[in-house]
Amino acid sequence: MDLSRREKALLLALTTRGGRRRSGCCRCEGVRAVRELLTNFPEKVRFIAATERGIEALGTAPDKLRIVPEREFEELSGTVNSQGVIAVADMPEMASGAVQGDFILALDQLGDPGNFGTIARSLRAAGQHELWYTKGSIDPWGDKAIRSGMGVQFALRMRRFDTLEELALAARELGFCKIFIADPHQGESCFKQQGLFEHSVIVIGGEPNGVLGVAPDAARVMIPMPGDYESINAAQAATVLIFESVRRSME
Amino acid sequence: MDLSRREKALLLALTTRGGRRRSGCCRCEGVRAVRELLTNFPEKVRFIAATERGIEALGTAPDKLRIVPEREFEELSGTVNSQGVIAVADMPEMASGAVQGDFILALDQLGDPGNFGTIARSLRAAGQHELWYTKGSIDPWGDKAIRSGMGVQFALRMRRFDTLEELALAARELGFCKIFIADPHQGESCFKQQGLFEHSVIVIGGEPNGVLGVAPDAARVMIPMPGDYESINAAQAATVLIFESVRRSME
Repeated sequence: MDLSRREKALLLALTTRGGRRRSGCCRCEGVRAVRELLTNFPEKVRFIAATERGIEALGTAPDKLRIVPEREFEELSGTVNSQGVIAVADMPEMASGAVQGDFILALDQLGDPGNFGTIARSLRAAGQHELWYTKGSIDPWGDKAIRSGMGVQFALRMRRFDTLEELALAARELGFCKIFIADPHQGESCFKQQGLFEHSVIVIGGEPNGVLGVAPDAARVMIPMPGDYESINAAQAATVLIFESVRRSME
Repeated sequence: MDLSRREKALLLALTTRGGRRRSGCCRCEGVRAVRELLTNFPEKVRFIAATERGIEALGTAPDKLRIVPEREFEELSGTVNSQGVIAVADMPEMASGAVQGDFILALDQLGDPGNFGTIARSLRAAGQHELWYTKGSIDPWGDKAIRSGMGVQFALRMRRFDTLEELALAARELGFCKIFIADPHQGESCFKQQGLFEHSVIVIGGEPNGVLGVAPDAARVMIPMPGDYESINAAQAATVLIFESVRRSME
């Protein structure tokens, strides 16, 4: 089937937050991102626009497929070298109920979609599920965030809160009572801190200001940097912490 | 002093590899990058172009300063939101002689400047020094690589080789005989491998193909991913390995 004019207009509108809000859908571009979507929420797919090349890369011709010529696809794609596949899907609802996994990763006002995507991918690779965030963070369903995260958003359980304090309260109600804030300057070493990943919340702040929110009774954890130079960003810090949880789980 | 026409032309020419080769200089943009340069190679600075705002951010008025109006600076900057400071410096020579630090991080055909910068920053934060790379990797003195690395290149000891085999041979001659190749599919866990950072070379490949080069007697190390989904990139993998060395050094 061909892409209708209405579908084309929707694809373009979904590059803005307003367009997503009005339609309740998001764009999901790239082979791996579309695979995550098809694995986790096949029922939410409205349609998939793809070039012949994109279908080949996907390895399957999915339902609700719209075949688009290369030149027309270029206008729709958010990237210079596209993979030739974009899905439009209903935005998944926020997660609710019991927490899955060992800890909650919480992003406090993390504004960069590239960092968001990197953190989401580290969390996914580590087999954890809960990615919570506060107002002021990037929209996880934005075009760039999905591309940067390669669609792992669709495999994670995300929840949004107005403030870090509300986030901490919600976690506590679900039995995740210990709050650890990643801090470049103070706190116990993340390699020594006991119980760091045992029913806890690990909070990462947006660079360069770190965590701005306030959470009562939070402890600080620090990534030791013998180079005496703070040069790692929020995504690198989160990756170190997330894989420290993997290391401990294998001891 | 004002920026001469010749200096302006040089600044623009240095955004290309050809321009750097012809002049023997590189551009170094951003407050932190210029600070690294002034700390490590002040004698190599040819001039620094900065706006009033850039000088304020730098916190000092360095020698060889050229004050540039905001509007003119915009044409020179490689970024949309510039910090108002660019230095032009002679490109540092390749490192030589004895290896400093516990291990060598080697990049095999790593093509992405963003990943390069992230890896360089993790290495700098961890207090290690040796960053070696093979032909086919990004030019560390390129404009994007320096911005992404925030100039930590100037604090690292870099060496370039045509092939991974030559790199391994050079390392061996300097007493760094164990070669470990980061591999997504096979090898001992990086959290269990003995002697991983003891006079060794850790090789990271460019995504998505991993390490393409061949090194005799190399062992494979793997970052365990309980999520059963390979979604981390070369920069994340390098960051996990680099901070595992920090963790071990603190045991």
